[in-house]
Parts: sequence; C-alpha cells; structure tokens
Amino acid sequence: MATLPRIADLSATSIGWGFYLCARKEVRTGKTGAYLAIVLQDISGEIKAKAFQDVDVLKEEFDAGEFVKIQGRGNLFNQKLELVLDKIRRVMPDRDALDGFREEDCIPCAPRPLDEMWAELGTHVAAVESPHIRRLLEDMLATYGDRLKIWPAAQAVHHAYRGGLLEHVLKILEGVRHFADAYGANRDLLIAGAILHDIGKLRELNYGVTTDYSVEGNLIGHITIGSAMVRDAARAIDGFPEDLLVQLEHLILSHHGEKALGSPVDPMTVEAFILAAVDDLDAKIHQVRKHIETDDTPGPFTAFHRRLERVIYKK
Amino acid sequence: MATLPRIADLSATSIGWGFYLCARKEVRTGKTGAYLAIVLQDISGEIKAKAFQDVDVLKEEFDAGEFVKIQGRGNLFNQKLELVLDKIRRVMPDRDALDGFREEDCIPCAPRPLDEMWAELGTHVAAVESPHIRRLLEDMLATYGDRLKIWPAAQAVHHAYRGGLLEHVLKILEGVRHFADAYGANRDLLIAGAILHDIGKLRELNYGVTTDYSVEGNLIGHITIGSAMVRDAARAIDGFPEDLLVQLEHLILSHHGEKALGSPVDPMTVEAFILAAVDDLDAKIHQVRKHIETDDTPGPFTAFHRRLERVIYKK
Amino acid sequence: MATLPRIADLSATSIGWGFYLCARKEVRTGKTGAYLAIVLQDISGEIKAKAFQDVDVLKEEFDAGEFVKIQGRGNLFNQKLELVLDKIRRVMPDRDALDGFREEDCIPCAPRPLDEMWAELGTHVAAVESPHIRRLLEDMLATYGDRLKIWPAAQAVHHAYRGGLLEHVLKILEGVRHFADAYGANRDLLIAGAILHDIGKLRELNYGVTTDYSVEGNLIGHITIGSAMVRDAARAIDGFPEDLLVQLEHLILSHHGEKALGSPVDPMTVEAFILAAVDDLDAKIHQVRKHIETDDTPGPFTAFHRRLERVIYKK
Amino acid sequence: MATLPRIADLSATSIGWGFYLCARKEVRTGKTGAYLAIVLQDISGEIKAKAFQDVDVLKEEFDAGEFVKIQGRGNLFNQKLELVLDKIRRVMPDRDALDGFREEDCIPCAPRPLDEMWAELGTHVAAVESPHIRRLLEDMLATYGDRLKIWPAAQAVHHAYRGGLLEHVLKILEGVRHFADAYGANRDLLIAGAILHDIGKLRELNYGVTTDYSVEGNLIGHITIGSAMVRDAARAIDGFPEDLLVQLEHLILSHHGEKALGSPVDPMTVEAFILAAVDDLDAKIHQVRKHIETDDTPGPFTAFHRRLERVIYKK
Amino acid sequence: MATLPRIADLSATSIGWGFYLCARKEVRTGKTGAYLAIVLQDISGEIKAKAFQDVDVLKEEFDAGEFVKIQGRGNLFNQKLELVLDKIRRVMPDRDALDGFREEDCIPCAPRPLDEMWAELGTHVAAVESPHIRRLLEDMLATYGDRLKIWPAAQAVHHAYRGGLLEHVLKILEGVRHFADAYGANRDLLIAGAILHDIGKLRELNYGVTTDYSVEGNLIGHITIGSAMVRDAARAIDGFPEDLLVQLEHLILSHHGEKALGSPVDPMTVEAFILAAVDDLDAKIHQVRKHIETDDTPGPFTAFHRRLERVIYKK
Amino acid sequence: MATLPRIADLSATSIGWGFYLCARKEVRTGKTGAYLAIVLQDISGEIKAKAFQDVDVLKEEFDAGEFVKIQGRGNLFNQKLELVLDKIRRVMPDRDALDGFREEDCIPCAPRPLDEMWAELGTHVAAVESPHIRRLLEDMLATYGDRLKIWPAAQAVHHAYRGGLLEHVLKILEGVRHFADAYGANRDLLIAGAILHDIGKLRELNYGVTTDYSVEGNLIGHITIGSAMVRDAARAIDGFPEDLLVQLEHLILSHHGEKALGSPVDPMTVEAFILAAVDDLDAKIHQVRKHIETDDTPGPFTAFHRRLERVIYKK
Repeated sequence: MATLPRIADLSATSIGWGFYLCARKEVRTGKTGAYLAIVLQDISGEIKAKAFQDVDVLKEEFDAGEFVKIQGRGNLFNQKLELVLDKIRRVMPDRDALDGFREEDCIPCAPRPLDEMWAELGTHVAAVESPHIRRLLEDMLATYGDRLKIWPAAQAVHHAYRGGLLEHVLKILEGVRHFADAYGANRDLLIAGAILHDIGKLRELNYGVTTDYSVEGNLIGHITIGSAMVRDAARAIDGFPEDLLVQLEHLILSHHGEKALGSPVDPMTVEAFILAAVDDLDAKIHQVRKHIETDDTPGPFTAFHRRLERVIYKK
Repeated sequence: MATLPRIADLSATSIGWGFYLCARKEVRTGKTGAYLAIVLQDISGEIKAKAFQDVDVLKEEFDAGEFVKIQGRGNLFNQKLELVLDKIRRVMPDRDALDGFREEDCIPCAPRPLDEMWAELGTHVAAVESPHIRRLLEDMLATYGDRLKIWPAAQAVHHAYRGGLLEHVLKILEGVRHFADAYGANRDLLIAGAILHDIGKLRELNYGVTTDYSVEGNLIGHITIGSAMVRDAARAIDGFPEDLLVQLEHLILSHHGEKALGSPVDPMTVEAFILAAVDDLDAKIHQVRKHIETDDTPGPFTAFHRRLERVIYKK
Repeated sequence: MATLPRIADLSATSIGWGFYLCARKEVRTGKTGAYLAIVLQDISGEIKAKAFQDVDVLKEEFDAGEFVKIQGRGNLFNQKLELVLDKIRRVMPDRDALDGFREEDCIPCAPRPLDEMWAELGTHVAAVESPHIRRLLEDMLATYGDRLKIWPAAQAVHHAYRGGLLEHVLKILEGVRHFADAYGANRDLLIAGAILHDIGKLRELNYGVTTDYSVEGNLIGHITIGSAMVRDAARAIDGFPEDLLVQLEHLILSHHGEKALGSPVDPMTVEAFILAAVDDLDAKIHQVRKHIETDDTPGPFTAFHRRLERVIYKK
Repeated sequence: MATLPRIADLSATSIGWGFYLCARKEVRTGKTGAYLAIVLQDISGEIKAKAFQDVDVLKEEFDAGEFVKIQGRGNLFNQKLELVLDKIRRVMPDRDALDGFREEDCIPCAPRPLDEMWAELGTHVAAVESPHIRRLLEDMLATYGDRLKIWPAAQAVHHAYRGGLLEHVLKILEGVRHFADAYGANRDLLIAGAILHDIGKLRELNYGVTTDYSVEGNLIGHITIGSAMVRDAARAIDGFPEDLLVQLEHLILSHHGEKALGSPVDPMTVEAFILAAVDDLDAKIHQVRKHIETDDTPGPFTAFHRRLERVIYKK
Repeated sequence: MATLPRIADLSATSIGWGFYLCARKEVRTGKTGAYLAIVLQDISGEIKAKAFQDVDVLKEEFDAGEFVKIQGRGNLFNQKLELVLDKIRRVMPDRDALDGFREEDCIPCAPRPLDEMWAELGTHVAAVESPHIRRLLEDMLATYGDRLKIWPAAQAVHHAYRGGLLEHVLKILEGVRHFADAYGANRDLLIAGAILHDIGKLRELNYGVTTDYSVEGNLIGHITIGSAMVRDAARAIDGFPEDLLVQLEHLILSHHGEKALGSPVDPMTVEAFILAAVDDLDAKIHQVRKHIETDDTPGPFTAFHRRLERVIYKK
Repeated sequence: MATLPRIADLSATSIGWGFYLCARKEVRTGKTGAYLAIVLQDISGEIKAKAFQDVDVLKEEFDAGEFVKIQGRGNLFNQKLELVLDKIRRVMPDRDALDGFREEDCIPCAPRPLDEMWAELGTHVAAVESPHIRRLLEDMLATYGDRLKIWPAAQAVHHAYRGGLLEHVLKILEGVRHFADAYGANRDLLIAGAILHDIGKLRELNYGVTTDYSVEGNLIGHITIGSAMVRDAARAIDGFPEDLLVQLEHLILSHHGEKALGSPVDPMTVEAFILAAVDDLDAKIHQVRKHIETDDTPGPFTAFHRRLERVIYKK
C-alpha cells in the first residue's frame, strides 16, 4: 500500500498510510452508532479525520497528543478535504522508525529551521548599543531561550505552530528596525520591544505537542505577564535605568494598539506606535496568507474570513 | 473686614479675606493687560479666582502648591461663581496661625476623618479568614499605609481629594461583602480585591498638595502597577498559594469591567464580576452627587454632565 | 428496568424510564428516514432527546407542552449528553401517579420553595415606610401575585424557570437595600423599583409549562408594559404623589442602564443607577453560574459563553 | 431713528429699534464689569445680543420670557452676527401697539399659518377608513388640539418654534401616505402613527414663549408618554381592537428606528420601518436647511454641523 | 405521475416531476456515502434539494447553471421544506418543450413584467427637464439597457432575481419624486440619482443564470464603478455642466448613507439625504417581506432575521 | 528695531519686525471695540496674532493670502504664545526685498528641499520593473508633477505645508518597499500605490498660499478622485493589463484601511494591507511629532491630543 503524502499535499484521491500527530480525539455518537472524530497534524499542516469502523477497538489504540500511524483515504465533505480512516494506532517508535517515522516530520512547524532563526535573533541582540538593554535581552534569552526557540505565537489565530513565535518576532524585528531608521526612533528600545512584546506567551500558552491556555494565561494575559517578566529581569541588572524600563514596559503593554484590543494603555511614544503597527500588520498578513493556502473556494476570491471579516483576493 | 466662609458656602455677595490652598496659578494676557487666573481650594471644595490689578506684583507673592491668604469678593461669570481678588500672598505660618490659619482646613479632604476610616479598614482586614490573604493585606498596609491613608482616588473624576481613595475603598468593601454573602462568593478574595484594586494609584498619581500623573502612571497605568505591587508582596510571603495570587491579580486587572475601559482581561470569575460592578457604581454615584452639589442650573435638573452624558435629576 | 435519575444527574451510562415535561417536539427527516427531536425538562434542568424508531407511531403519542413517560439511555453527541429514546408517550395522570409521577417534579423550578420566597417578598413590602408606595405594592401583589409567584424571568437567558422572576427580584431587593443604606438613597423607591422593574414580563412572556413571547411582549416590550402597569395602579390610589410616580416609572424605564440595551431613558437619579447596577450584576452572575454548571469542557475553564463573550474560570 | 428689520434680515450695519421676545437673559461679569447676555427672537429667527452700559438699570427693565423693545446695532463677533444694545425694556402692550408691536410678530413660528396647517391635518384624519382609528384620532385632537396646534417639535434641534410639531407631522403624513401606497402598507395605521408619534412631546416639553423639558419629559421621555396617552385614549373607546392598539403603540415606541436612539423596541412591521425612515429624513432635512440658512461661512460649504457631523453643500 | 407545482407552492406532501434551474450543485460525502446537495430555482423562488441514490450516475447528468428536469418529493428537514430527488437530468430543450418546459418559467424573476417596468422607466426619463441630465440618462440606457433591464439588484440580500435592479430602481424613483416635491429638492438630479445609484452593479455582479461578484466588483465595488460610468458618459456629452456632474456623482457615492456602510462620503446635499433614505427603506422593506414569505415559524413572529437583527411581526 | 526670529523661535520676550504670510484675517468686535485676529505663517510654522489699535486703518492694509510686514511682540495668552501687533501691511516686493523679504522664507514648507525630494521620487519610479506600471507613473508625474511637487498632504491634520504630500509619499515608499521585500509582495504595485494613493488630493485641495477643500474635494473625496485619475491615465496606455489596473485602484480605494474611515472597500490583498498600515503609521507619527513640537505643557507629557485621544510622552 502506498505512503500518504504530507498533509498539505493530500487530495480526495489520496489513499495509503502515514505517520501524524493526533492533535484532538473525540468519540461521537450519530444515528448509526459511534465514530471517532480526530485532528491530525504534520509539519505541513493539519486535517480532520474520521473513523467509522471498529470504533470500540480503535479508540483504545491511541490518545490525543500522541504520534499515530493511520491507514485511510481522502474524502470531500462540505467542500472540505478530510481523511476517512480504516486503521489508527499509536506509533511504536523503534519499529516505526524503520518505516520512516520521525517526530520532527509530524509536528507543525515554522517554514524556516529553528536554528537558523535563533542565530538571526542573536544578531539583532548584538546590534543593540545600550549595554543595559543588551544585557537585559541576553538575560532573557538565557532564561527563556529553550521555550522562545520552539513556542507557537498563538493557539489558533496566526503562527500557531512550533517556532511560530520566533518567526513572528523576527519579522517584527525587521519591520521596527526599518521604521527606527526611517523616523529616527530609538532603535535599541524597538529591538527590545520586538523581541519581548509577546514574551508573556511563554506562560500564557501551555505547549507540548498541542497548545492551550494556562490559568494565568486566561486570567492575567500575556501582556501583563510579559511586562512583569521584563521588569523582574531588569531589576536583577545593576543600574538598569528606570526610565528605560518604563518605556520598555510601555511598549509591551501598548502593543495591541488600543484598549479595546486588550492593551491597558494606548501607545504614547513614537516607538510604541511603530511596534503596534508592525505587529498588527504581521499578524494580519499571516492570516491572509494562511487563509489563501487553505482555501478551496473556486474563483479568484477566498471564502469569507470570519476574523478579518472579508474575502481575500487570491489572484 | 469680614472673614470669607468656606468655599462651599461662598456666594456672589461674599466679601472679605481667608486662607486657601492655591492649586493652580497662571498669568494670562487679555486686551487690557495681564491678569492672574487661579484655582483656590479648601477642605470644602474648590473655586476659580482672578486678580486683575497689580498683577506684576501679586504674581511674585505666591506659587501654585502654596497656602495663600487672599482678599476678594464673589462674582458670577457665565453663571458660575468665582472670586475676584484684590490681594493674595503666601501664608506666613506663624503669623497667620494667630489669625486662624490651619493647614488641614485648606486641603480638600474626604468628609469622614482619616483616622476613623483607617480604623474601619483594619476591621475589614481582621475579618479575613485566609491567613495568606490576611498576611498579604497586613504587609501591604504596613508598606503603603502612609500613602493609602491620605491618597486621592483620582486627579479629577471622582474622590479627587485627601483620603478619597480610602473613602472609595471602604464603600467598595461594604458592597463586595454584601454580594459575597448574597452569592456565596469568596469573601476573603473580595475583601483583598476591594482594598487593593486601586493600589497602583499610589504610584500612578503624584500627590502632595496637588495631584498629577507620574510617568509610569501614564505609560503603565495603575492597573498594571497595582497588579505588580501585589505580586511582589505575595512572593515575599512564604507559601502564598499560586492560585490565590492569580485570582487576586485577576480581580485587579479586570476591575474596570471591560477591555475598552482599560482592563487587559474581562472578568471571568464571580468575584471579578462583583468587584467591577461595585467599583463602577461607587464611581458613578460619586460623580452624580458631586455634580448635583456644584451645579447652579435653575430648575430640577443639572446641566449636562459630559462624562456621564446626561442631565441629573436634583429633586 | 431502572428508573432514570433527575436530568441534572443523568450520564452517558444512564438507562431506564422516567417522567418529564416535553418542552419541544419536532419531526426531522435525515438520510435514513424521519426521527423525533425532543427537549425534555424536569425540576433539575433540561436535556435533548431523540427517537429514531417507530417515529410514525411515537409522534402521535404526545405533544410539546405535555408530561411524558419515556424509556431510553444516555448518549454523548458532540461532547454533549443527550437521551436516545426507545419509547415515549403522554402521562396518564392517575395510572402514572402510582409509579411516582408528580407534576411538580417535572417542571424546571427555582431552587428555593415558592412559598418561602413569597413570604420573604412580603417582608420587604412591609418594610416600606411611604404609605403610598406600600399601598401600591400591596395592590400590585394582590392583582398580579398569582403570576408573579411562578413566572420565569426570561425565556432563555437567566432565571428561565418557574419562580425565576421572584428569585431574581429577591436578590435585587437585597442588593438595592444594601446600597440604599450605603448611599443614603430612597429605600422605599428602591424596594418598589426592585419588585416592579420586571413586572411587565408577566405580560411580555406567555408562561404555562413553556415560555414564549406574547405579541405585545415583542412589539411593546416589558419595560414599557411594566411602566404602564405601575402607572395604572398608582392612579387608582387616591393622592398618590405625582413626583413619586414619575421617579418610580423612571426606575423601571431606565433599569437596563443604557439606551442601546433597550431603556428609553438613561438613569438620572442615584436610585436608578443603583437598580440598574444590581439588576445587571444578578443577571450576569446567574449566567456565569449556570454556564459553569452545564459546562462539560475539560480543564479549569468553561467553553466560550456567547452572550458574555468570554470563557469562565471554574476553579 | 430707523426701525430694525426682522432678525432674519439683520446685518452688521443695521441700527435702530424694534420689538422682540427675550428668550434668555443673563448677567455676566467680565474684566470691565457686568454686562447683559441676551437672546432675542421674532417670527423670523433668533439672535444673540449684549448690553454693556447701564447694566444695573437695564437688568431690572425686563425678564426672560417677556416681549421687549430694544435699541441697538448689528456687530460681528467671531464671524457671527449679534446685536449690541443701548436700551432694552419690557413691552408696554397698549402704548407699544401704537408703534406697531404685535405679539405674533415676535414669536418664532412655522412658515405656514397655523390654521391652514390645522385644516390640512383634518383632511388626513378624515381619510382614515378604520372607524376605530378615526375615532381615536378625533378624540386625541379634541383633547390635545390646543397644544398640538402651537407646540414646537423640539427645544433646539429641529422645528423648534411655534407650530413646529404640526409642520413636522404634516410632512411625515405626506411621506408615510406615499409609502403606504407604494408598499401596500396599512394606511390608516400610518396616518395615526404620523399624527401621534411625537404626541408625548406635548408633555415632554413645557412651552409658553420659551421651551424646556418637564420633569416627566426628562425622566420618562416623549416616546413612553405618547404611547401611554394613546393607550388611555384607545381604552376609552368601546371595542377598540387590541391588535390595532398594540401595532399603533409599536409605531410610536419604535419610531426612533433603533434602541441606541431611544426606542425601547426596534421596528418590526413594514409600517414601523416606514414611519421611522420618514421621521428621520424630515428631521435631518430640517436641520440641513436651517444650517444653510444661518450659516455665514464664505464659499460653497457651511461650517461643520456638530450633530450631523459634516459640512453641507450650499450650492 | 403528477407535475410538481411552482416552488412557492411546494409542500411536504408534494410528489412528482418538474422543470427548474439548478443554481448550485455539490457532491458531499457522509457516513453512508456520497449524496448530491442541490439548489433549484424557478420564477417563484428557490429550494434546497438532495439526491441520495445513484449519485455517481446522476452527478454526470447536469451541472450548476443548467435547466433540469427532476423527479422527487417534499420533505421537512430542520423545519425547512426541501426536495428529495429520485431523478435529475439536464433539460433537452426540444423534447422537454413538448412537456411544457419554458426557460422563463424557471428563472427567478421580479413579480412585474420586465417590459412594463422598462416602459415605466422611460416615463421617468422623459420627465427630466434638464436637457443635459435627460441626455445623460438616454445615453446610459442606450448603452446599458440590455443589462439594466434584466439585472438582479444583489446576489442574495434583496431583489436578488431577474429584473430585481429595475424593480428596485422604480420604487426608488417613486420615493425620491415624492420627496423632491415635498422638500422642493432638485427633481432632475434625484431622478438621475435613483436610476443610476446602483448602475455599477452591472459590472460588480456577473449575471447569467446565476449571480456572483466580479473581480472589480469585490476590489472596487459598485459605488466607485458606477460613479466612473456616469462620469465617462457625462464627459462624452458636449457642455455637460461640471457642477451637475459633481452633484450627481455625490448622489451615487453617498447613497449608502454613511461611511461605515461603504460610502466614501457622507450625504451633504438635501438630494443625497433623500436618495440614501429612500434606498435604505426599499432594501429593508424588501428583506422584511421576503423574510415573512419564506418563514415557516409558527406563531405571529418570524424567526430571527440575522441581517436585520430582529424578529418580524407577521400579523 | 530688531528683526523677529522665525516663528518656531519666537518667545514671549520677542519684539521687532518681520515678514510673514497672512493665512487668515478676521475683524472681531469685543467689548472695547474691534480688533484683528490674524494667523501668520513662515517656513518654520504658524502663530496667532492680534492687533488692537488702529483697526480701521490696519484692516485695509492687507488681506488673507498676502505676504505681510508686521511689527509686534510676543505674548502669552492661555499658555499659548501669540503676537500682539502694532503695525501690519502687505509686502511691497521690490522695496521689501532690500530688507530681506523672500517669498520662500514665508511659506510653511517641508523640512527637506523640494528638488531633492523630487529627485528621490524619480529613483523609485525607475526601480519599477513592470513597463506598464513604470509608464503609468511617468505619465502621471509628467501630467501632475508641478502640483505633486509642492502640494500639502492635508489642510490641517498632518504634512499640512508646501511639499508635505511629497514628503509623505517618500516615507510611504520606504515603508512599502521594506514590506514588499519582507513579505514577498508585489513591489511594483506597492511603489505605484505609494506614489498614487493620495494623488486625488491634487484636486481635493485647492492650494495656493493657503489650503482649502474644493467642491469635488468635499462631495467626491480624494479617494474616488484619485482612483479615477489613475484609471484615465492607464486607459491612455496601450495594453495596460486590466488586472493590474484593478489591483492598483484597489490599493487607492482601500488605503484608509476600513470603511468607517472612508475607504469604500476593505483591503483584500497583501499589498493593500501593507499600504494601509504604512500610510496610517506615517500620518500618526507626523501628528505625534508635530504635537510634541508645538506643545508648551510643563512636564514630561503633552496636553491631550484631540484627534489621537491621548497625551504623548515627550521624554
């Protein structure tokens, strides 16, 4: 039997077996009995899958959060591609490795290699002239690097995969450095703001193989969490200037651009206006691009995007 | 010459001399030359005043933030009472004390004595059953008591006078304790939330004899500042339960009730709904009452209240 | 065969027979033929049910609005518990009484006994000092007591069960009396406002065993209806002071707190601010509590609440 | 000395004496002493006036709400025409009649004669086919005719002069009758709705020579007042169909078109959509026309209109 | 076998064959295999249909956008009437004509005959007094008449059928002529504005047998397209007055009434206020009427209308 | 007598004479007689001025829109610096040239030289790869270059001076080119969009020495005007691809970012999102910088900015 292609390359005529990450698993009961509703992921994306047969047996063979081996075929349901599964079981690492299973192929991941992105981040830190700010960034990266390197930027909206936060931060860095030059704004502050604006997401989101909100993530939120992480780190640095810290916290707190979007304060410095604009643009472009990629609507426009509240031109 | 009554009792026919706090002082130039535009305060309220004569001399005789002795008379300008001053100079404490000057008479102040309010606050702390929360409150009061006892609750909107924050906190305490009982909510958390919800104002506002916003007050805001003050204090307490702290911070962060009003997170617990509702009601009633008190519009309704966007029925 | 537990205690493994109220009944046709889509209620809550077999026969055996005896088993569908029915027929009162059928067990009802709540309402009326207002309340309760005692507070949003309106009114009464004391507001007016603010719901909603909107309920609305009911009653009382009546009507008309929420006038008195705040808080807490009770989402947070537009922390 | 022209014809070079209604009178104190700030009206419009000399004497010579004889000259202040007065005193009816004083010339009034408008209103009533609705209208006009004939439609926004409400109602009548025919809507209901939609303004506004809000006007509002007036009148008619009454009240209650504009219910019938649209259009066109008339801005556009939030093209 | 009635007259007991237009066709796969999800239309309306048998064969027998002959029966699904099909194939024009097939019976169409509406449009053009405007209208109708005569006014919201745009334009014409007289507005401009306000829809929408948005329709929009079409036509007319053209473009650009609804400029002339009001009212009444027609909810009110955000009273 | 410094360098102690542009002139009448209210501008900014003496003579000596020679002194009024004038007359070019008068010194102007900016614009055009788009830009610059080189970007909000539009366009160009690279967007389209997005302002605004709105500027708006200018130019180019034109018009039409801000369509392409973000950021930063420059508020924060609705941190 054939091997299934990566999720991004599946079609309604695909048939065969493959390795994936099971992101969600649910037993549902319809009129003709129980069936399994599953979400599968790999490095290229995610897809819904269903199993209608041998449900009682299959459901014991794997859990959400595990890597699985499945056998199935593509199917169009309500104009959306899905997989109908004949078999599914958890991966047996040693044995399945022989058939080509590799964890890293099954985890949704940023398009650029993590190490390459991490190295690029380092060059930005090195470009900071203020010794206090550079020291702060180095401390933060030393403390939080393991997570920052792999964290997703969100549970669902944009950059919602391994390395997504880092990918997002690097784009923001490019943008704010452009505008720092264009408007003579404080480049050091903007580099720090770009790197740290979403740092609270390391605690807002729990991330292993799947992503969800932590208790403090919901009740406190990454904006306040991140502001506190930065303050704690700055205080541990001898002589960190108070006014620099206040401005940096202001960048983090105001980066959603307005109160109604969850920033407790509006941007009040040129740097804060720049960071909020660049962040918003990157998040939107990511949503636009992802919507175009996953859209199956015939014709030059996508289906309506609920969050952006418009159709997108695909050209 | 007669002594002027307290500001709240002045009328267009008042004439004489008195002691006040000069809250603002400005030299303005009109067609017929320079004049002094002044704001005077005492324990009973505040009033605008102008001096048209001897401006060059008078303007050297006092500064904003000083206690002053003035001589003048009441005057109606655009239906608002003001004072027209003939003389004004800074208070000479020793000499003027003989004429009855007392600092405490000249500072706008909450209607209840500060000590009485402070004692009442203590009974609320004592009513807390959770040792961790009670300890946290005792620590906070020990650290910040000097300021909390005298701080205003705002620069202008409501409770904008000495002891105003404490007065506001005590009203909130009554309210949340009522609802804690009514809805079986966590009383300890609500007592702590009521006492600490505006604690960040101790750093958001600079207050001596006049009130204005600090740099971190504007750029960070009392909600984030207060949340951090509480976290720091809780961490200093051995074994302070993390979930209690998160819920308490949530109370502080969400107490404006919605994001558009500056809370980075919406209320998500019964306690947070209660605190936000009681806080909002107290602020509104204070504005309504103050508007009625200072309104001179004839008839049963006040003039339009800009912030509340309505007229108020005076009965 | 076993007896099914109360709806609130049903689980996916429940199996047996029981007595319920059929709140809705619909014949739907799917690919494999017609089936019955039903909503069942009892004193503890409500649940969806489906019957797939003998539909043509079963559908004649009962109607929406009737008490039914059913036989069935629990089933999870899209993570929600439902009942799959094998049998359903209308109750035969005499015969089924022998098996334990009691009407009062099958009707969703407030947690507190109606008589106890009614008695408590009387104590509030008795506390009114103004003879005119007390007389007005006595007249209203004499006229509308039968309905006020059993009416739901809404069709769906909050307190949507027998006695729900009275339960809601009593909570409001506690709250407004607290604030009447706290702010020196007119207690008599607030007691009357609390009891009468939703009195128009007695005509806005039709209530027998199920609840729906009357024609005047939709076209006129309970706010205007209630205001008129109170005016008519006050006019029938000799010498009822006009200004009291106007203020009382103002309480009813403004109790939604702002125009966009359906109040034709904004609150313009301290009493109106209080009533609107207490009413809003009670409605929200009821929604929060009900959402927590009926939520099956794993983890410390509920699913997203559409009306409140947030998740709720379950602790 | 020359007679001043009507207010609408005054210019910066006008000088002389004339009779007007004093709508507002205030003593203000500036740097150079007290002056009188006055608003004068006549049949053609209104204008601000000031008196700087002999203030102490002049201020005793007349009151707001009285007809006055003035002597003065035109003056441009901040690009707005005003009058500077040398003399002002209350009218002596007998003596001044000899000089041409007539009350009706001094009261701002609709452009069409009241009697002519009243007669036209009668033809609309006569066109109603439903005997119940015609009877209701006849009763309402019998009861409220004296006021309806002269009432203004507002204190300030639009049709704010004698007969303004009637003028407004007649325009609405034309409009709704057009659409009743165009859309096959209930003409009788629409005629009644047009005549009665603002009937509550007879109690919302106090009107003698000047206009202001009554207590029930502010606390209850003309929408609720009018709905009650109609209900009372309908109940006094034997056999008035309940469904007709509910629909008619719905027209009154929903005629502001949406809740945020003060209607407690949204339009839910074709007739309600029509009435709300026609009413809104008439109010807007009246504001546009009045703004163009009173605007002195050079060029083809008016100054910014605050309520309409735009400039208007004058052509 | 019986002939099915027109779509508007179908019921759950209908059974037989008929001719329709297939507006949409989709193959969906459920648990029990693939089925066809179809939308059928005729002159009287549209209905959903499904085919569960012989899907592989049937799906080759017709396409969306073709006329079809079907055999099937009525069925209620979720309280909505649908058709379950046994057979479906594309029409064979010659052969099926013998059985009564006529294209014009199968296309959703305005209730009034197109030729009658077209003739009426001509009388409005003839009533224009300005030779320039009349010439412009004649040119536009000469150029675009073929499309204007048959175009729908929208893809879905209102007047979404053959001749719908013309039907809408004629209603608007009646309305604006009424108000042109009532308010002494420029009748010629309003006639032109009414005829041309949606003329851009001839390019915004692609219409053959089905309707969808063109690329420029989405990216540029009918307001800008229409404004350009009118400008191009006016420029081709010798001596067309510039100010007339600007006002006419303003009518087109502002006819949605406010920026948030897609008009780049707010109405700034009496004519623009009138056109926007009449257009909005016609669109709303059409939605109300259509909602009432297609609603199956028991009782005097329709189901909730999502776009209008309310229920409608059916009487 | 001394020469006054440039407006940006004036202080309350400045005294002397100088050359300026009179931007506005008005005769106002106060209590003590008429005075002149004037706005003066030079290359460095603008300032209010008043003349209280010899008004009847002085007012004939110059007009708004003329260059003037004045003699006066600095004065603080309501904390704002103004000039009090002793003399003012229109410039006599020949004679005053001897005293140093140069037109270019008296006109508010962008900080960078116009020729330098114009040359830079050319390098952007030259960087366009698409021959059609480059040709379009060359044609547009050939036709509109004279105006584009000197036009202000607005009457008041931002870049409201000679060369302001060009300065704004160049900043936008830098920004969009950065993001074109960063996101792999269509650089040619973005360069064209940046250069042409506000091209309609050449007709929306009348600009000589002062700036105001043209008739079509108000009634049609620069977005629609600009879109039409581009379309006309593109049509004059043989073989200009229709889809390029539609996308380019889309960039112009959507560049305000949302409908409520006056864009008739929302951004639907990556390029449109980029242009709208960069344009908005540049406008905001310009307002922030200008507000900081002109602000005289003591302390680290500016006064409240009405349009941005916040205070700004000045550092």
